[in-house]
Amino acid sequence: MPSYKLTYFDARGFAEPARMLFHLAGVSFEDVRVSREDGSWEKVQDSTPFGKLPVLSVDGFDIPQSAAIIRYLANKFGYAGKSPEEKAWADAIVDQFKDFVGAFSELILAQRSGKSAEEIARISTEITTPAKEAWFKILNGILDKSKSGFLVGDGLTFADLVAVENVTTLEKNGFLVASEQPKLIALREKVYGIPAIKKWIDTRPDTPF
Amino acid sequence: MPSYKLTYFDARGFAEPARMLFHLAGVSFEDVRVSREDGSWEKVQDSTPFGKLPVLSVDGFDIPQSAAIIRYLANKFGYAGKSPEEKAWADAIVDQFKDFVGAFSELILAQRSGKSAEEIARISTEITTPAKEAWFKILNGILDKSKSGFLVGDGLTFADLVAVENVTTLEKNGFLVASEQPKLIALREKVYGIPAIKKWIDTRPDTPF
Repeated sequence: MPSYKLTYFDARGFAEPARMLFHLAGVSFEDVRVSREDGSWEKVQDSTPFGKLPVLSVDGFDIPQSAAIIRYLANKFGYAGKSPEEKAWADAIVDQFKDFVGAFSELILAQRSGKSAEEIARISTEITTPAKEAWFKILNGILDKSKSGFLVGDGLTFADLVAVENVTTLEKNGFLVASEQPKLIALREKVYGIPAIKKWIDTRPDTPF
Repeated sequence: MPSYKLTYFDARGFAEPARMLFHLAGVSFEDVRVSREDGSWEKVQDSTPFGKLPVLSVDGFDIPQSAAIIRYLANKFGYAGKSPEEKAWADAIVDQFKDFVGAFSELILAQRSGKSAEEIARISTEITTPAKEAWFKILNGILDKSKSGFLVGDGLTFADLVAVENVTTLEKNGFLVASEQPKLIALREKVYGIPAIKKWIDTRPDTPF
Protein backbone atom coordinates (compact mmCIF):
# COMPACT_ATOMS: atom_id res chain seq x y z
CA MET A 1 0.00 0.00 0.00
CA PRO A 2 1.45 3.40 -0.93
CA SER A 3 2.03 6.05 1.70
CA TYR A 4 -0.64 8.77 1.36
CA LYS A 5 -0.41 12.31 2.68
CA LEU A 6 -3.24 14.80 2.14
CA THR A 7 -2.37 18.44 2.84
CA TYR A 8 -5.08 21.07 3.24
CA PHE A 9 -6.26 23.72 5.67
CA ASP A 10 -8.14 22.89 8.88
CA ALA A 11 -11.42 22.77 7.00
CA ARG A 12 -13.61 20.30 5.17
CA GLY A 13 -13.76 22.38 1.97
CA PHE A 14 -12.10 20.92 -1.09
CA ALA A 15 -10.36 18.13 0.83
CA GLU A 16 -13.21 16.46 2.70
CA PRO A 17 -14.42 14.13 -0.08
CA ALA A 18 -10.83 12.79 -0.31
CA ARG A 19 -10.72 12.19 3.45
CA MET A 20 -14.07 10.39 3.22
CA LEU A 21 -12.79 8.17 0.41
CA PHE A 22 -9.86 7.08 2.60
CA HIS A 23 -12.23 6.26 5.45
CA LEU A 24 -14.61 4.42 3.12
CA ALA A 25 -11.76 2.32 1.75
CA GLY A 26 -10.23 1.75 5.17
CA VAL A 27 -6.92 3.12 3.90
CA SER A 28 -4.78 5.09 6.33
CA PHE A 29 -3.42 8.50 5.34
CA GLU A 30 -1.69 11.44 6.92
CA ASP A 31 -4.29 14.22 7.36
CA VAL A 32 -2.01 17.29 7.37
CA ARG A 33 -3.77 20.58 8.19
CA VAL A 34 -1.83 23.80 7.72
CA SER A 35 -2.82 27.30 8.77
CA ARG A 36 -2.39 30.81 7.45
CA GLU A 37 -2.18 32.08 11.02
CA ASP A 38 0.82 30.11 12.30
CA GLY A 39 2.81 30.39 9.05
CA SER A 40 2.61 26.66 8.27
CA TRP A 41 0.79 27.35 4.97
CA GLU A 42 3.48 29.81 3.86
CA LYS A 43 6.09 27.17 4.58
CA VAL A 44 4.56 24.60 2.24
CA GLN A 45 3.11 26.89 -0.45
CA ASP A 46 6.22 27.07 -2.63
CA SER A 47 6.53 23.29 -2.67
CA THR A 48 2.96 22.76 -3.95
CA PRO A 49 2.66 22.08 -7.70
CA PHE A 50 0.15 24.87 -8.40
CA GLY A 51 0.64 27.08 -5.31
CA LYS A 52 -2.65 25.86 -3.86
CA LEU A 53 -4.18 23.21 -1.62
CA PRO A 54 -5.25 20.46 -1.39
CA VAL A 55 -2.30 18.37 -2.52
CA LEU A 56 -2.25 14.59 -2.33
CA SER A 57 1.16 13.03 -1.99
CA VAL A 58 1.39 9.36 -3.04
CA ASP A 59 4.76 7.92 -2.04
CA GLY A 60 6.08 11.45 -2.48
CA PHE A 61 4.44 12.04 -5.89
CA ASP A 62 2.32 15.19 -5.62
CA ILE A 63 -1.12 15.55 -7.22
CA PRO A 64 -2.79 18.99 -7.09
CA GLN A 65 -6.41 20.07 -7.68
CA SER A 66 -9.22 18.67 -5.57
CA ALA A 67 -11.28 17.09 -8.35
CA ALA A 68 -8.21 15.38 -9.82
CA ILE A 69 -7.33 14.07 -6.34
CA ILE A 70 -10.74 12.63 -5.55
CA ARG A 71 -11.13 11.13 -9.03
CA TYR A 72 -7.72 9.46 -8.62
CA LEU A 73 -8.66 8.01 -5.21
CA ALA A 74 -12.17 7.09 -6.34
CA ASN A 75 -10.74 5.12 -9.26
CA LYS A 76 -8.28 3.35 -6.93
CA PHE A 77 -10.88 2.53 -4.28
CA GLY A 78 -13.87 1.75 -6.52
CA TYR A 79 -16.03 4.84 -6.09
CA ALA A 80 -15.63 6.47 -9.52
CA GLY A 81 -18.56 4.79 -11.27
CA LYS A 82 -18.86 1.30 -12.72
CA SER A 83 -18.69 2.03 -16.48
CA PRO A 84 -17.10 4.72 -18.66
CA GLU A 85 -20.55 6.33 -18.92
CA GLU A 86 -21.10 6.31 -15.14
CA LYS A 87 -17.61 7.76 -14.66
CA ALA A 88 -18.41 10.52 -17.14
CA TRP A 89 -21.56 11.39 -15.23
CA ALA A 90 -19.81 11.46 -11.86
CA ASP A 91 -17.21 13.73 -13.49
CA ALA A 92 -19.89 15.95 -15.01
CA ILE A 93 -21.62 16.45 -11.64
CA VAL A 94 -18.32 17.39 -10.01
CA ASP A 95 -17.53 19.79 -12.88
CA GLN A 96 -20.96 21.35 -12.47
CA PHE A 97 -20.22 21.73 -8.75
CA LYS A 98 -17.01 23.56 -9.66
CA ASP A 99 -19.02 25.97 -11.83
CA PHE A 100 -21.40 26.59 -8.94
CA VAL A 101 -18.55 27.14 -6.46
CA GLY A 102 -17.03 29.67 -8.87
CA ALA A 103 -20.24 31.72 -8.74
CA PHE A 104 -20.40 31.30 -4.97
CA SER A 105 -16.83 32.36 -4.34
CA GLU A 106 -17.59 35.75 -5.90
CA LEU A 107 -19.96 36.40 -3.01
CA ILE A 108 -17.48 35.19 -0.37
CA LEU A 109 -14.75 37.33 -1.97
CA ALA A 110 -17.02 40.40 -2.00
CA GLN A 111 -17.85 39.87 1.68
CA ARG A 112 -14.21 39.38 2.70
CA SER A 113 -12.91 42.34 0.70
CA GLY A 114 -15.36 44.68 2.40
CA LYS A 115 -17.58 45.55 -0.57
CA SER A 116 -20.66 47.67 0.10
CA ALA A 117 -23.84 45.98 1.28
CA GLU A 118 -25.42 47.11 -1.99
CA GLU A 119 -22.73 45.42 -4.11
CA ILE A 120 -22.93 42.23 -2.01
CA ALA A 121 -26.71 42.16 -2.43
CA ARG A 122 -26.30 42.64 -6.18
CA ILE A 123 -23.84 39.74 -6.49
CA SER A 124 -26.12 37.57 -4.35
CA THR A 125 -29.19 38.36 -6.47
CA GLU A 126 -27.59 38.36 -9.91
CA ILE A 127 -24.96 35.63 -9.58
CA THR A 128 -25.00 33.45 -6.48
CA THR A 129 -28.70 32.77 -6.01
CA PRO A 130 -29.34 31.84 -9.68
CA ALA A 131 -26.23 29.61 -9.61
CA LYS A 132 -27.42 27.90 -6.43
CA GLU A 133 -30.92 27.40 -7.81
CA ALA A 134 -29.51 25.93 -11.03
CA TRP A 135 -27.24 23.58 -9.05
CA PHE A 136 -30.09 22.42 -6.78
CA LYS A 137 -32.36 21.93 -9.80
CA ILE A 138 -29.77 19.72 -11.47
CA LEU A 139 -29.23 17.60 -8.34
CA ASN A 140 -32.97 17.28 -7.69
CA GLY A 141 -33.57 16.33 -11.33
CA ILE A 142 -30.97 13.58 -11.11
CA LEU A 143 -32.35 12.30 -7.80
CA ASP A 144 -35.91 12.31 -9.19
CA LYS A 145 -34.81 9.74 -11.78
CA SER A 146 -32.46 7.77 -9.54
CA LYS A 147 -33.56 4.26 -8.58
CA SER A 148 -30.75 3.77 -6.06
CA GLY A 149 -31.07 7.15 -4.35
CA PHE A 150 -27.46 7.90 -5.30
CA LEU A 151 -26.51 10.42 -8.00
CA VAL A 152 -24.88 7.94 -10.38
CA GLY A 153 -25.76 4.30 -11.00
CA ASP A 154 -26.59 1.93 -8.17
CA GLY A 155 -23.92 2.87 -5.66
CA LEU A 156 -21.93 5.63 -4.00
CA THR A 157 -19.54 7.69 -6.13
CA PHE A 158 -17.30 10.63 -5.30
CA ALA A 159 -19.99 12.86 -6.83
CA ASP A 160 -22.27 12.01 -3.88
CA LEU A 161 -19.52 12.95 -1.42
CA VAL A 162 -18.96 16.30 -3.14
CA ALA A 163 -22.71 17.03 -3.20
CA VAL A 164 -23.45 16.16 0.42
CA GLU A 165 -20.44 17.98 1.87
CA ASN A 166 -21.57 21.04 -0.08
CA VAL A 167 -25.08 20.63 1.39
CA THR A 168 -23.53 20.62 4.87
CA THR A 169 -21.45 23.74 4.17
CA LEU A 170 -24.38 25.64 2.64
CA GLU A 171 -26.62 24.70 5.57
CA LYS A 172 -24.01 25.64 8.20
CA ASN A 173 -23.66 29.06 6.57
CA GLY A 174 -27.33 29.85 6.10
CA PHE A 175 -27.56 29.21 2.35
CA LEU A 176 -29.74 26.12 2.56
CA VAL A 177 -32.83 25.39 4.64
CA ALA A 178 -33.06 21.63 5.20
CA SER A 179 -36.87 21.50 5.04
CA GLU A 180 -36.80 23.08 1.55
CA GLN A 181 -34.45 20.46 0.09
CA PRO A 182 -35.78 17.07 1.23
CA LYS A 183 -34.10 15.11 -1.59
CA LEU A 184 -30.67 16.59 -0.91
CA ILE A 185 -31.07 15.96 2.81
CA ALA A 186 -32.16 12.36 2.11
CA LEU A 187 -29.04 11.87 -0.03
CA ARG A 188 -26.91 13.21 2.80
CA GLU A 189 -28.55 10.92 5.34
CA LYS A 190 -27.98 7.97 3.02
CA VAL A 191 -24.27 8.84 2.61
CA TYR A 192 -23.69 9.80 6.25
CA GLY A 193 -25.38 6.56 7.29
CA ILE A 194 -22.70 4.37 5.69
CA PRO A 195 -20.86 2.94 8.74
CA ALA A 196 -17.31 3.98 7.73
CA ILE A 197 -18.54 7.49 6.89
CA LYS A 198 -20.65 7.72 10.04
CA LYS A 199 -17.67 6.81 12.20
CA TRP A 200 -15.57 9.56 10.56
CA ILE A 201 -18.36 12.19 10.72
CA ASP A 202 -18.80 11.50 14.43
CA THR A 203 -15.14 12.19 15.18
CA ARG A 204 -13.98 14.68 12.54
CA PRO A 205 -13.11 18.26 13.45
CA ASP A 206 -16.22 20.47 13.35
CA THR A 207 -15.47 23.31 10.93
CA PRO A 208 -17.85 25.85 9.31
CA PHE A 209 -16.45 25.25 5.82
CA MET B 1 -18.44 1.82 -33.14
CA PRO B 2 -21.03 3.90 -31.29
CA SER B 3 -22.74 6.83 -32.96
CA TYR B 4 -21.33 10.10 -31.60
CA LYS B 5 -23.00 13.50 -31.74
CA LEU B 6 -21.32 16.58 -30.27
CA THR B 7 -23.57 19.61 -29.84
CA TYR B 8 -22.11 23.06 -29.22
CA PHE B 9 -22.19 26.59 -30.59
CA ASP B 10 -20.37 27.61 -33.78
CA ALA B 11 -17.17 28.17 -31.81
CA ARG B 12 -14.07 26.30 -30.73
CA GLY B 13 -14.52 27.14 -27.03
CA PHE B 14 -15.30 24.27 -24.71
CA ALA B 15 -15.95 21.79 -27.51
CA GLU B 16 -12.82 22.04 -29.63
CA PRO B 17 -10.63 19.61 -27.66
CA ALA B 18 -13.38 17.00 -28.09
CA ARG B 19 -13.50 17.63 -31.85
CA MET B 20 -9.70 17.28 -31.98
CA LEU B 21 -9.86 13.97 -30.11
CA PHE B 22 -12.28 12.59 -32.71
CA HIS B 23 -9.97 13.70 -35.52
CA LEU B 24 -6.90 12.27 -33.74
CA ALA B 25 -8.63 8.93 -33.29
CA GLY B 26 -10.06 8.93 -36.82
CA VAL B 27 -13.54 8.42 -35.41
CA SER B 28 -16.42 10.08 -37.21
CA PHE B 29 -18.92 12.20 -35.28
CA GLU B 30 -21.77 14.58 -35.95
CA ASP B 31 -20.48 18.13 -35.33
CA VAL B 32 -23.75 19.92 -34.52
CA ARG B 33 -23.46 23.71 -34.14
CA VAL B 34 -26.45 25.60 -32.80
CA SER B 35 -26.96 29.35 -32.61
CA ARG B 36 -28.62 31.80 -30.28
CA GLU B 37 -29.54 33.95 -33.29
CA ASP B 38 -31.62 31.48 -35.31
CA GLY B 39 -33.33 29.93 -32.27
CA SER B 40 -31.67 26.52 -32.71
CA TRP B 41 -30.04 26.77 -29.25
CA GLU B 42 -33.39 27.53 -27.60
CA LYS B 43 -34.84 24.47 -29.30
CA VAL B 44 -32.29 22.09 -27.78
CA GLN B 45 -31.66 23.78 -24.41
CA ASP B 46 -34.44 22.04 -22.50
CA SER B 47 -33.27 18.64 -23.66
CA THR B 48 -29.69 19.15 -22.39
CA PRO B 49 -28.91 17.49 -19.04
CA PHE B 50 -27.62 20.66 -17.34
CA GLY B 51 -29.13 23.37 -19.59
CA LYS B 52 -25.74 24.03 -21.14
CA LEU B 53 -23.47 23.03 -24.00
CA PRO B 54 -21.41 21.13 -25.01
CA VAL B 55 -23.26 17.83 -24.80
CA LEU B 56 -21.85 14.59 -26.19
CA SER B 57 -24.41 12.04 -27.22
CA VAL B 58 -23.14 8.43 -27.40
CA ASP B 59 -25.75 6.19 -29.02
CA GLY B 60 -28.30 8.60 -27.58
CA PHE B 61 -26.80 8.67 -24.07
CA ASP B 62 -26.08 12.31 -23.18
CA ILE B 63 -22.95 13.44 -21.33
CA PRO B 64 -22.74 17.11 -20.25
CA GLN B 65 -19.78 19.26 -19.11
CA SER B 66 -16.79 19.80 -21.38
CA ALA B 67 -14.10 18.33 -19.10
CA ALA B 68 -16.17 15.20 -18.46
CA ILE B 69 -16.72 14.83 -22.21
CA ILE B 70 -13.07 15.15 -23.20
CA ARG B 71 -11.90 12.89 -20.35
CA TYR B 72 -14.42 10.26 -21.49
CA LEU B 73 -13.23 10.46 -25.11
CA ALA B 74 -9.55 10.64 -24.11
CA ASN B 75 -9.93 7.45 -22.06
CA LYS B 76 -11.66 5.72 -24.99
CA PHE B 77 -9.13 6.84 -27.58
CA GLY B 78 -5.92 6.61 -25.52
CA TYR B 79 -5.16 10.27 -24.80
CA ALA B 80 -5.94 10.44 -21.07
CA GLY B 81 -2.47 9.55 -19.76
CA LYS B 82 -0.75 6.18 -19.47
CA SER B 83 -0.95 5.56 -15.69
CA PRO B 84 -3.32 6.60 -12.87
CA GLU B 85 -0.75 9.24 -11.90
CA GLU B 86 -0.48 10.64 -15.45
CA LYS B 87 -4.27 10.68 -15.67
CA ALA B 88 -4.44 12.61 -12.39
CA TRP B 89 -2.00 15.19 -13.72
CA ALA B 90 -3.87 15.63 -17.00
CA ASP B 91 -7.02 16.08 -14.91
CA ALA B 92 -5.32 18.57 -12.59
CA ILE B 93 -4.15 20.72 -15.51
CA VAL B 94 -7.65 20.78 -16.98
CA ASP B 95 -9.11 21.64 -13.55
CA GLN B 96 -6.59 24.45 -13.22
CA PHE B 97 -7.66 25.67 -16.67
CA LYS B 98 -11.25 25.73 -15.43
CA ASP B 99 -10.19 27.91 -12.49
CA PHE B 100 -8.44 30.27 -14.89
CA VAL B 101 -11.42 30.44 -17.22
CA GLY B 102 -13.65 31.29 -14.25
CA ALA B 103 -11.50 34.35 -13.52
CA PHE B 104 -11.42 35.22 -17.20
CA SER B 105 -15.16 34.97 -17.71
CA GLU B 106 -15.68 37.70 -15.11
CA LEU B 107 -13.93 40.09 -17.48
CA ILE B 108 -15.90 38.93 -20.52
CA LEU B 109 -19.15 39.22 -18.52
CA ALA B 110 -18.26 42.75 -17.36
CA GLN B 111 -17.53 43.77 -20.96
CA ARG B 112 -20.74 42.27 -22.32
CA SER B 113 -22.96 43.69 -19.60
CA GLY B 114 -21.72 47.22 -20.28
CA LYS B 115 -19.83 47.88 -17.04
CA SER B 116 -17.88 51.14 -16.80
CA ALA B 117 -14.36 51.28 -18.23
CA GLU B 118 -13.13 51.80 -14.67
CA GLU B 119 -14.81 48.63 -13.39
CA ILE B 120 -13.54 46.62 -16.37
CA ALA B 121 -10.01 47.89 -15.74
CA ARG B 122 -10.32 46.94 -12.07
CA ILE B 123 -11.45 43.39 -12.87
CA SER B 124 -8.65 43.06 -15.42
CA THR B 125 -5.99 44.26 -12.96
CA GLU B 126 -7.24 42.54 -9.81
CA ILE B 127 -8.63 39.28 -11.16
CA THR B 128 -7.95 38.41 -14.79
CA THR B 129 -4.30 39.39 -15.19
CA PRO B 130 -3.11 37.66 -11.98
CA ALA B 131 -5.10 34.55 -12.95
CA LYS B 132 -3.56 34.55 -16.43
CA GLU B 133 -0.05 35.00 -15.06
CA ALA B 134 -0.57 32.18 -12.56
CA TRP B 135 -1.87 29.90 -15.33
CA PHE B 136 1.04 30.71 -17.66
CA LYS B 137 3.52 30.19 -14.81
CA ILE B 138 2.09 26.75 -14.10
CA LEU B 139 2.21 25.71 -17.77
CA ASN B 140 5.74 27.07 -18.24
CA GLY B 141 6.90 25.33 -15.05
CA ILE B 142 5.55 22.01 -16.30
CA LEU B 143 7.09 22.48 -19.76
CA ASP B 144 10.45 23.41 -18.19
CA LYS B 145 10.61 19.96 -16.63
CA SER B 146 9.04 18.04 -19.54
CA LYS B 147 11.35 15.75 -21.49
CA SER B 148 8.79 15.03 -24.20
CA GLY B 149 7.67 18.62 -24.74
CA PHE B 150 4.11 17.57 -23.84
CA LEU B 151 2.45 18.54 -20.56
CA VAL B 152 2.06 15.02 -19.19
CA GLY B 153 4.32 12.00 -19.69
CA ASP B 154 5.81 11.18 -23.06
CA GLY B 155 2.82 11.74 -25.32
CA LEU B 156 -0.18 13.88 -26.14
CA THR B 157 -3.03 14.08 -23.64
CA PHE B 158 -6.28 16.03 -23.64
CA ALA B 159 -4.56 18.51 -21.31
CA ASP B 160 -2.33 19.58 -24.22
CA LEU B 161 -5.38 20.12 -26.42
CA VAL B 162 -7.09 22.27 -23.78
CA ALA B 163 -3.93 24.33 -23.24
CA VAL B 164 -3.13 25.00 -26.90
CA GLU B 165 -6.69 25.88 -27.88
CA ASN B 166 -6.71 28.35 -25.01
CA VAL B 167 -3.42 29.81 -26.30
CA THR B 168 -5.07 30.31 -29.69
CA THR B 169 -8.13 31.98 -28.18
CA LEU B 170 -6.08 34.28 -25.94
CA GLU B 171 -3.85 35.25 -28.87
CA LYS B 172 -6.78 35.89 -31.22
CA ASN B 173 -8.31 38.21 -28.64
CA GLY B 174 -5.21 40.17 -27.69
CA PHE B 175 -4.53 38.51 -24.33
CA LEU B 176 -1.33 36.73 -25.35
CA VAL B 177 1.66 37.95 -27.35
CA ALA B 178 3.29 34.96 -29.05
CA SER B 179 6.85 36.26 -28.70
CA GLU B 180 6.41 36.49 -24.91
CA GLN B 181 5.36 32.86 -24.51
CA PRO B 182 7.81 30.79 -26.56
CA LYS B 183 7.20 27.55 -24.63
CA LEU B 184 3.43 27.73 -25.03
CA ILE B 185 3.80 28.52 -28.72
CA ALA B 186 6.23 25.60 -29.12
CA LEU B 187 3.68 23.30 -27.47
CA ARG B 188 1.02 24.54 -29.85
CA GLU B 189 3.25 23.99 -32.88
CA LYS B 190 4.00 20.47 -31.66
CA VAL B 191 0.31 19.68 -31.23
CA TYR B 192 -0.85 21.45 -34.40
CA GLY B 193 1.89 19.60 -36.33
CA ILE B 194 0.37 16.18 -35.65
CA PRO B 195 -0.97 15.19 -39.11
CA ALA B 196 -4.56 14.41 -38.07
CA ILE B 197 -4.72 17.66 -36.07
CA LYS B 198 -3.10 19.66 -38.86
CA LYS B 199 -5.63 18.41 -41.37
CA TRP B 200 -8.49 19.47 -39.09
CA ILE B 201 -6.96 22.86 -38.23
CA ASP B 202 -6.53 23.61 -41.94
CA THR B 203 -10.20 23.04 -42.66
CA ARG B 204 -12.06 23.89 -39.45
CA PRO B 205 -14.31 26.97 -39.23
CA ASP B 206 -12.29 30.04 -38.24
CA THR B 207 -13.93 31.46 -35.12
CA PRO B 208 -12.61 34.05 -32.61
CA PHE B 209 -13.42 31.89 -29.60
